[in-house]
This record gives sequence, C-alpha cells and structure tokens, in this order.
Amino acid sequence: MTDKIVTAAMVMIGDEILSGRTPDQNLNFLAKNLAEIGINLREVRVVPDVEDEIILAVNSVRKKFDYIFTSGGIGPTHDDITSAAIAKVFNDKCKKNQQAVEILEQKYGKENLNEASIKMAFVPSKSKLLDNPISSAPGFRIENVFVMAGVPKIFQAMFFAAKKELTGGAKIKSREIKVSLTESIIAKSFSDLQQKYLQVAMGSYPFDSETSLVFRSADYEAMNSAVSEMVEIIKNIKNNAIISS
Amino acid sequence: MTDKIVTAAMVMIGDEILSGRTPDQNLNFLAKNLAEIGINLREVRVVPDVEDEIILAVNSVRKKFDYIFTSGGIGPTHDDITSAAIAKVFNDKCKKNQQAVEILEQKYGKENLNEASIKMAFVPSKSKLLDNPISSAPGFRIENVFVMAGVPKIFQAMFFAAKKELTGGAKIKSREIKVSLTESIIAKSFSDLQQKYLQVAMGSYPFDSETSLVFRSADYEAMNSAVSEMVEIIKNIKNNAIISS
Repeated sequence: MTDKIVTAAMVMIGDEILSGRTPDQNLNFLAKNLAEIGINLREVRVVPDVEDEIILAVNSVRKKFDYIFTSGGIGPTHDDITSAAIAKVFNDKCKKNQQAVEILEQKYGKENLNEASIKMAFVPSKSKLLDNPISSAPGFRIENVFVMAGVPKIFQAMFFAAKKELTGGAKIKSREIKVSLTESIIAKSFSDLQQKYLQVAMGSYPFDSETSLVFRSADYEAMNSAVSEMVEIIKNIKNNAIISS
Repeated sequence: MTDKIVTAAMVMIGDEILSGRTPDQNLNFLAKNLAEIGINLREVRVVPDVEDEIILAVNSVRKKFDYIFTSGGIGPTHDDITSAAIAKVFNDKCKKNQQAVEILEQKYGKENLNEASIKMAFVPSKSKLLDNPISSAPGFRIENVFVMAGVPKIFQAMFFAAKKELTGGAKIKSREIKVSLTESIIAKSFSDLQQKYLQVAMGSYPFDSETSLVFRSADYEAMNSAVSEMVEIIKNIKNNAIISS
C-alpha cells in the first residue's frame, strides 16, 4: 500500500453482452472491489469474441494502466479464444500447463477428460495460474494482465485469487450530499467549490427532483472540508433542502 | 431496412460507473433495442469524465461503426463536459441553441432559468436536438454520434427519439439449446458444426452443470438447420440431455 494512484482497466470479451442476451454482472463487482483496495478502475472496453479486437483492446490499455482484467472466453469450446489472443499480445504461445492438467484431472477424473477439456490447460507459456475454487477453467496472470472467466461467480472467485497479487495505492473515499434541489440551482456554487478544492473530484447526479452531490478524494481532510462548506452553502440557499449528508 | 450489417458502439462517460457507486443500467437496454431494429452493438467503452478521454474514445469508434451512442455528462454542472468534448471531436463549437432555450423556458419558466440551466442549451452548432419528453436536458445528434443523458429513464427516452433516425440492416436472430452436459463433452461436435455453418455465430456458455448453446445469424434458414443438427448430435450423445431448444 502506497500513496501512489494505482489504476486498472477491464476488457470484457463479450458477444453475449454486446448482443444484449446477457446483462453484465462483473463491471460493478470489479469496480467496487478494486476501489476497496485502493485501485482505480479508469477504463472498460467490451469487445466481441474476435481475436484481432481482443488483441487491439488489451494492447491499447496494458501500458496505460497498472492492472488489466479480462473476462470471458477461457472455456473449452471453439468460441473460447481469449488465451490464444493474450498469448499473441505478449509474443508468447499457449502451451499445455501441467498444473492446469492436474487440476482438471482432480476435478473431473482423468478418464473423463477429452481433447476439449485439455484445451483449457493450454495457457501462455509465461503465464501463472490463478486459483479457481469454483470450476477448473484456468484463469491466469501474464505480466499485468489477469485473464479471468466471464461467468460471474467464477469471475469473482478468480478476482479474490488475483487480489493477493495486487498492490493498491491511495484509497479514494467518497461522500455524498443528497438535496431536494435541481442541479441548476446549486451548479454555480458547486463549481466554485470545485475550483477551491482541486484535489477533490466533485460530481452531480440528478434523480427526479433530487440531486446527489458526490465528493471523491484520497485527501479525506480536504474532502470533509468541501462537504462541510457545501452543506452550509445549501442551507443558505434553502433550509431543509438537505436530505442526507 | 437493408440486408447490410449495420453496427454501433457505445461510449459511456462514467466516473460513477467506474468508481462502482452506480451500476450501469444502459448497456443492456441499448444492446437489446438496437438488435431489435437490426443494428449490432459491436463495442462499448466506459471512460472517466475527462475531456481528452472522451474525445479519444469517440474518435476511435466513430469511423469504425455506423452509429455511436454516448451516455452521461450533458447536465448543467461543472462536471458535465460531454457537449464541449463532442464539439471538439467535430471541430465545432458549442453555441446557444434557441430551440433548447425555449424547451428549458417551457419546462422551468423563464424566470427560473439561471446561467447553469442555460449552459445546457449550449450544444455543438452543427448538432440537431433529440426529443426529450422526460427532462429538458438537451440530447443531440451530430453526424453519426447521438449524445444522450446518463440517467436511465432519460437515456431511454432519448433513445426512442433517436430511433426514428436510425436505419437498421439485417436482423440477427438467435436460438438457444440448453443441455444438461458440460461444455467439454459437446465441444468437438459443436466446433465441427461451426465449421460447417460459417454464417451462424455459435457460442457456448456454461451455467453450473448446464450449458447454453447460442446460435446467432441473419440467415435464419441456416440457423434453424444448424440447431436441428445440433439437437440430433446431442440426442446421440445422451438421451434426455436437452433441457430446452
């Protein structure tokens, strides 16, 4: 844990997400769990199950952010092409990983393994397997890229395995003020406050006639001061406008 | 409506999505509603509320796909920077749109408008407003980019307004076979079938001990043949393995 700002990106390999058949359940889980350990998710891409698109997306983000998490496409069927694509990103080749074979044998019994199940054990030669207590699909890490399953409960299990290898930085905390005022009314004072506290990211989100003002920062003292000042400003605009803070 | 494959991408301007505070509710809505009119969502990017990142993302996708939909960042507060970013993408400037001003006046009453509400009426000079029956935040279209609100019910209302201007292509339909077999067992036959029907995209998705086989294509005859063949293949592997098809 350092005071450095640590960043991450997510690449979903997701024909099913893009077609609308399956609503995504992994993004919010990842965002929240990374934030808790001081890692800021800064970009997400959803791409189809097409090798060139996967390679392009991972290459676009892997040097820009500290950690990359991919989801989907590591099963035994022909549409599972993520491992091969990631190998190409790192000029590596997929090879049969003996540890992955043993995990598969333990899970299914050696006699029940066929060519397709063994295909799952082919991961980039320079990669390191991630624990997966739920199924036997091998997720892996190669450099700063964590390759994980798309099925939410396996994605989550793999994330908890990956977490041991992550080094978080400054934790960004947030506070919220909910007010029964429309955004326009508080916009000017809110913008002035943002100018005063540049180290606090301030966002405003409307919900019907209410507005949620969100303050985010790794500098908690500044954040708390900004919240207190905004509370006073709102009280001066309209008493009882604050729903919660 | 043509037989052409029509494509789209989505760019979410989403600090709240990336921080994990707000789970996204727009992607699945957009994917499903585009698919219904023959438009294939092919890429999604979630970027922070940072002008350069918005410009980079929109520029990366706008020439690659037929339609682009953005969400978020068009309100009256200082963190609403999407309109200005989109103007820069098109070497345009935001100017006060008289129609948008009139809509705001009708909604809130001229006497209640302040500088912040009027800011919402500043949209790129070459853009065309989208109807928004829910709130008065002006969404707009500029070339092939539709700039819409992030609040789900406003996003949806704006999408239905945008829809009138969209020309769909070949509609991709899908069929599903659910089987009580693990993926590995059917992987080989499924892959062979994919080779036989290249015009049908076949994907396999595991759920516990069940597997969902999804067939997607604009060539319904080929898709139906592929499904029938796969049903026979599964029956030969194990009777009663088919849960639904």
